Amino acid sequence: MKKEQFMQFMEEGNLTVPKYLLNNYVNLGLNEKEFLLLLHIHSFVETGIIFPTPMEIAEKMTIEPSECMEILRHLLQKGYVGINDEMDEYSIKYERYSLQPLWEKMIQFMMNQSNESYQQTQHEQEI
Amino acid sequence: MKKEQFMQFMEEGNLTVPKYLLNNYVNLGLNEKEFLLLLHIHSFVETGIIFPTPMEIAEKMTIEPSECMEILRHLLQKGYVGINDEMDEYSIKYERYSLQPLWEKMIQFMMNQSNESYQQTQHEQEI
Amino acid sequence: MKKEQFMQFMEEGNLTVPKYLLNNYVNLGLNEKEFLLLLHIHSFVETGIIFPTPMEIAEKMTIEPSECMEILRHLLQKGYVGINDEMDEYSIKYERYSLQPLWEKMIQFMMNQSNESYQQTQHEQEI
Amino acid sequence: MKKEQFMQFMEEGNLTVPKYLLNNYVNLGLNEKEFLLLLHIHSFVETGIIFPTPMEIAEKMTIEPSECMEILRHLLQKGYVGINDEMDEYSIKYERYSLQPLWEKMIQFMMNQSNESYQQTQHEQEI
Repeated sequence: MKKEQFMQFMEEGNLTVPKYLLNNYVNLGLNEKEFLLLLHIHSFVETGIIFPTPMEIAEKMTIEPSECMEILRHLLQKGYVGINDEMDEYSIKYERYSLQPLWEKMIQFMMNQSNESYQQTQHEQEI
Repeated sequence: MKKEQFMQFMEEGNLTVPKYLLNNYVNLGLNEKEFLLLLHIHSFVETGIIFPTPMEIAEKMTIEPSECMEILRHLLQKGYVGINDEMDEYSIKYERYSLQPLWEKMIQFMMNQSNESYQQTQHEQEI
Repeated sequence: MKKEQFMQFMEEGNLTVPKYLLNNYVNLGLNEKEFLLLLHIHSFVETGIIFPTPMEIAEKMTIEPSECMEILRHLLQKGYVGINDEMDEYSIKYERYSLQPLWEKMIQFMMNQSNESYQQTQHEQEI
Repeated sequence: MKKEQFMQFMEEGNLTVPKYLLNNYVNLGLNEKEFLLLLHIHSFVETGIIFPTPMEIAEKMTIEPSECMEILRHLLQKGYVGINDEMDEYSIKYERYSLQPLWEKMIQFMMNQSNESYQQTQHEQEI
């Protein structure tokens, strides 16, 4: 293995995924393809490609661009990912994917779950 | 959101995935379900559950335990994951999943790819 | 570089540090040595060495074991790190460092800061 | 704790530090302040601030801008961090910190260390 390869590996860096999300994507209503597609978008955005095409995403997955577009449309509709309109310093508009909707769903799920377990405890104590 | 929930979220921690692996799991011969199954094993092992059952893994995915077992068998056979026999301080034997085979495949792929691009450059220069 | 070295590098893995913590350790009252000492403890615990000695920690830093002990005592006293008593399956007691106090301080700081900025906004609106 | 705070925390994300680097920064010739300063630069660059000023860096540390400049100069001279000249799509030049020199030093150290342990084994076998 050449030093240059290792360097490039280091430069690409890592994606960090909260274990809570990994453990609960199914509970949030996502399947494996959808979840990985979101992780790919996350990775693209972090690398500076803020609005990857369905083609670019599909290339890293075992799906065709048309299926990728289908899944993307579904994820946008169901509010797992968003598209923000932004403007650069030269007043040129551009679009950027945002995972904020995913974090929001995750937090909402966390809060509901804890309320449920709280109510369950209350209920058990009453019995 | 309660402080306790955030604390628990912090305690669970993160899984780090090399972007090189995320970008190349398809080139290594894996599909989305297989790749995520490996990430789940990685996460389990890090959390201290070093030999999760197909049931435990399937619970976090959109697959049945039987399909999970099928995929696991395939990944073991094809050398994407291994099982190590270990012994604790009381001489009790136990098994542990190891992702070393996956890293090995990844490194091998990295090395081949760089040789190819080297040969390609050579070839182009000769022409 | 040999394949084995890269494998070992992959096996050691990564430590993930929330950027919020990196950006605010000074605001939490920590200096560089103290913050890094906490990260070392975090890393040890993740690797399975749940109660490293001052000697083991100092070896990875530019400080002597005696200074390490001094800093540790300070961090315990001020509530940046805790020691939990636990019991294994054979009823043998052992101690484990816990970073929960650090997360708690971080969350508390986050909450105070946002209240402040809220009050500031309110105040500005009143004027 | 408000949902918005958690969202912001998620948006800031994490810094991943190879444990090998955490375990060996002293062997690479760095002390705690120098190592953390490099991590701060790494974090700034990832966040899109590719050439932070000594002032910006010092604000996140327990050092004055003048000491920060001193340490930066030392790290640049000794080859732990580099400055790359780049050009944007409008042909405007800009500078960017690069941590490639640090990865290079780390890899070199890894390779030397493994050669040493190899030679030691050889030597022991000869005896």
